Amino acid sequence: MSKIAVSGAHAFDQAVALTPVTVTVHEHGRESTRHWQGQTHAAYANMVGPFGGITAAQGLQSILLHPERLGEPVSFTVNFAAALADGAFRVTSQPVRTNRSTQHWVVRISQTDSAGVESVVLTATAVTAVRRTTWSAADAVMPVVAAPADIKRVSRPARVAWMQRYDMRPCSGEIPADWNGAEADSVSQLWMRDDPPRPLDFASLTALADVFYPRVWRRRALMTPVGTVSMTVYFHAGTAELAATGEGYLLGQARAQSFFNGFFDQSAELWNEAGDLLATTHQIVYFKE
Amino acid sequence: MSKIAVSGAHAFDQAVALTPVTVTVHEHGRESTRHWQGQTHAAYANMVGPFGGITAAQGLQSILLHPERLGEPVSFTVNFAAALADGAFRVTSQPVRTNRSTQHWVVRISQTDSAGVESVVLTATAVTAVRRTTWSAADAVMPVVAAPADIKRVSRPARVAWMQRYDMRPCSGEIPADWNGAEADSVSQLWMRDDPPRPLDFASLTALADVFYPRVWRRRALMTPVGTVSMTVYFHAGTAELAATGEGYLLGQARAQSFFNGFFDQSAELWNEAGDLLATTHQIVYFKE
Repeated sequence: MSKIAVSGAHAFDQAVALTPVTVTVHEHGRESTRHWQGQTHAAYANMVGPFGGITAAQGLQSILLHPERLGEPVSFTVNFAAALADGAFRVTSQPVRTNRSTQHWVVRISQTDSAGVESVVLTATAVTAVRRTTWSAADAVMPVVAAPADIKRVSRPARVAWMQRYDMRPCSGEIPADWNGAEADSVSQLWMRDDPPRPLDFASLTALADVFYPRVWRRRALMTPVGTVSMTVYFHAGTAELAATGEGYLLGQARAQSFFNGFFDQSAELWNEAGDLLATTHQIVYFKE
Repeated sequence: MSKIAVSGAHAFDQAVALTPVTVTVHEHGRESTRHWQGQTHAAYANMVGPFGGITAAQGLQSILLHPERLGEPVSFTVNFAAALADGAFRVTSQPVRTNRSTQHWVVRISQTDSAGVESVVLTATAVTAVRRTTWSAADAVMPVVAAPADIKRVSRPARVAWMQRYDMRPCSGEIPADWNGAEADSVSQLWMRDDPPRPLDFASLTALADVFYPRVWRRRALMTPVGTVSMTVYFHAGTAELAATGEGYLLGQARAQSFFNGFFDQSAELWNEAGDLLATTHQIVYFKE
């Protein structure tokens, strides 16, 4: 793959940029649906179509940019209906219910093929909320690992462009070096951040939640075809906590619970270097025997 | 609360019954959106509105009943936008993308108020799939607990109707007897099944995923107002495995990972008595300080 020029804005900001197209005002005039145009970005290309994390971030961005948004993301679920084709796509973000302190969202991304047929490639739902300061506690225990500076960065040539967008420093459960079918556990721990570094926000945290390589590869040491079909991110931090994290590394820990007839689940936690649990995330992934 | 007569069909089947109303055929004629009418059921009433698990099951049922459904549920996410008012509601189930072996769904439940204004009370997305037999493995470890027959059923008077619809046998982490603010862990384990017993299916498994009482009550021994805003269920079983489970008990284990500024997460696993992990589930819940 030829080197991709990343000049001016960060590649991530380029990738999640959306252009407003039209506005549909709802009945009763309480809310409006916004239509946006986006563009796949070569810097985040995966084997087939873009890295799922960047498509998820683009979906969330259509909510973050919506002028009628109430509060900050608390929950976000994306369903990957098809690989995106390189090029333009259309995003629709609709607030379907606005309560006093919470708001519910439905998002769709679609693409039009050469025959002029528009097809859905992603659906998403989200809840945003105006948070108040309450009693808080993290029960998940952050693993004790070496500091990012003391762990060697993955330096193997990336097979896909998007992997070059992340500085990944594996602590345990690295991608198998030998694809020998030797079964293992499904746990991986790694430090990770955008490369070049970029201050953390809800969109980039969403993409980071999808950085973990497929658990079935680790579990079986067999590289079978895979594809995430649905991913959920729960945010346990607000804008202030993400800003405090800044360009620091996140420690991610991922594992699977079940592999059953073509699908497995994958759950992960993401902490910042200060030890704050910023997000928990879950996904279900198709795999071919 | 007066006793609720449950005669003829099982209350669960009565509750998830949906009446077809209209059909909207999509452009290009590939799929159709189905509109259904449902009805809240007094047997599943909660403090305010119905038990979320039954509303989730009603949403899933609109997919299970859809004549163009491909395969079985793999993933299901519901967002609870508002408490349902007692009475009729409208469900819309739309297959937005049908692939060779997977299908993507968007569901909405809405109600019309006395002023004639229709509002969304629930959104959902789902992935259904035609599964093939593959290498399978459950990595989550089933807790070792006493058999259901050896554990006393919860016999305290239920404060809400829906709790009477479940035979619950707590193994650990029972709802606090003393609301004394003594902090504890957030783990609960219990055997549970429909009461009267009913053969397990995808709809009832979805409802069972929401039976766990709010983790913040266990964690703080303080009964603060709570409400689930989003729940995801990953199914790790097909129709055959659910049929084999039949009317048996499920062992559920739930815990929280983070409580932060008004919202906490809750993850759970559901095994059958034979030790098969049938589902993993996650939710994020609003709580008031």
